[in-house]
Amino acid sequence: MTEYEHLLKQVSFIHEIDKVKYILRKTKLFNSDRNENDAEHSWHLAIMALILAEHANEPVDILKVVKMLLIHDVVEIDAGDIFLYDAVLNHTNTLAEQKAAERIFGLLPDEQAKEYIAIWEEFEASETPEAKFARAMDRLEPLLQNISNNGGTWKEFNVSYEQVIGKKSVIKNGSETLWKFAEKLINESVEKGILNKG
Amino acid sequence: MTEYEHLLKQVSFIHEIDKVKYILRKTKLFNSDRNENDAEHSWHLAIMALILAEHANEPVDILKVVKMLLIHDVVEIDAGDIFLYDAVLNHTNTLAEQKAAERIFGLLPDEQAKEYIAIWEEFEASETPEAKFARAMDRLEPLLQNISNNGGTWKEFNVSYEQVIGKKSVIKNGSETLWKFAEKLINESVEKGILNKG
Repeated sequence: MTEYEHLLKQVSFIHEIDKVKYILRKTKLFNSDRNENDAEHSWHLAIMALILAEHANEPVDILKVVKMLLIHDVVEIDAGDIFLYDAVLNHTNTLAEQKAAERIFGLLPDEQAKEYIAIWEEFEASETPEAKFARAMDRLEPLLQNISNNGGTWKEFNVSYEQVIGKKSVIKNGSETLWKFAEKLINESVEKGILNKG
Repeated sequence: MTEYEHLLKQVSFIHEIDKVKYILRKTKLFNSDRNENDAEHSWHLAIMALILAEHANEPVDILKVVKMLLIHDVVEIDAGDIFLYDAVLNHTNTLAEQKAAERIFGLLPDEQAKEYIAIWEEFEASETPEAKFARAMDRLEPLLQNISNNGGTWKEFNVSYEQVIGKKSVIKNGSETLWKFAEKLINESVEKGILNKG
């Protein structure tokens, strides 16, 4: 492959991921009724990781965390966004997502394709310190958004305190400090009446 | 300052930068008539930098490049977006932007505020290898978008070939390879009739 063909492959990936900007999440922007899209969400999480890295339970390779967060939703171009509290569909590691990762990262030159598929799989597996911390960011942002929106998707979709605690407690795996903070916010949300016990 | 107060400062910054999602650029998404916002733009540039890093003229600290790109437009919350080809307003380093950087990054704990103001200033100065490569990304993305949109903002605002060459040639400072590629695309755009010589 010539250098030019190599670059064309990279540019085709850059072009393809523009579609991430059209994928709407259930969650709304802060103090807003406008749905957030996956590109905005990924941007926000990457900055959160940079700013909050000191709170990780274990030292993390922050560049890897940022890579994970920037690309974690790219698979939704093919597989779509699944709501965290969806009772039927599993949020992660679906066959559709695996196929999407292979197609989309497969647009890149081979070595980069392998690198980014591996990073995406590492994020999905949530086992390494980097993946756990990245996952904590992914759970913390919508929590902050829902609170700023007087309950947001909790109210809209009748999500209970118990469900929130269940889903958000994975923050603890990435950061005990941030989990303590999140728990406080969740309990305050019950007191304020924007989140109901089941 | 307690650990909790320190964290609250970080969260107030995370909350504030949500406003970046509302700042519309002149440039449209790929193959689209929808304006891109600064958060989507910054997300895209950060990924471009990760993917294209090998083409930098000099070795770069890619984590620093990514930090620069993720936060480079945060000042526009206060200072607004200025079109690259604006004939009156200077695009960079305005007093309004400096004040904005101090207010917005100033929400962070002191050390982080200093770090991010310095990173933003380094990007604006365009002198280090990291800043030059980051700037190249910032010029390359709208070029690709305009081509995908049959001229895009070039047609909309009567921008000439000479102006495009003038503004885009800074790509060369970050990457000779990417500039060679960009020049080819610009010349092809003239041949296709989507960019006019002045």
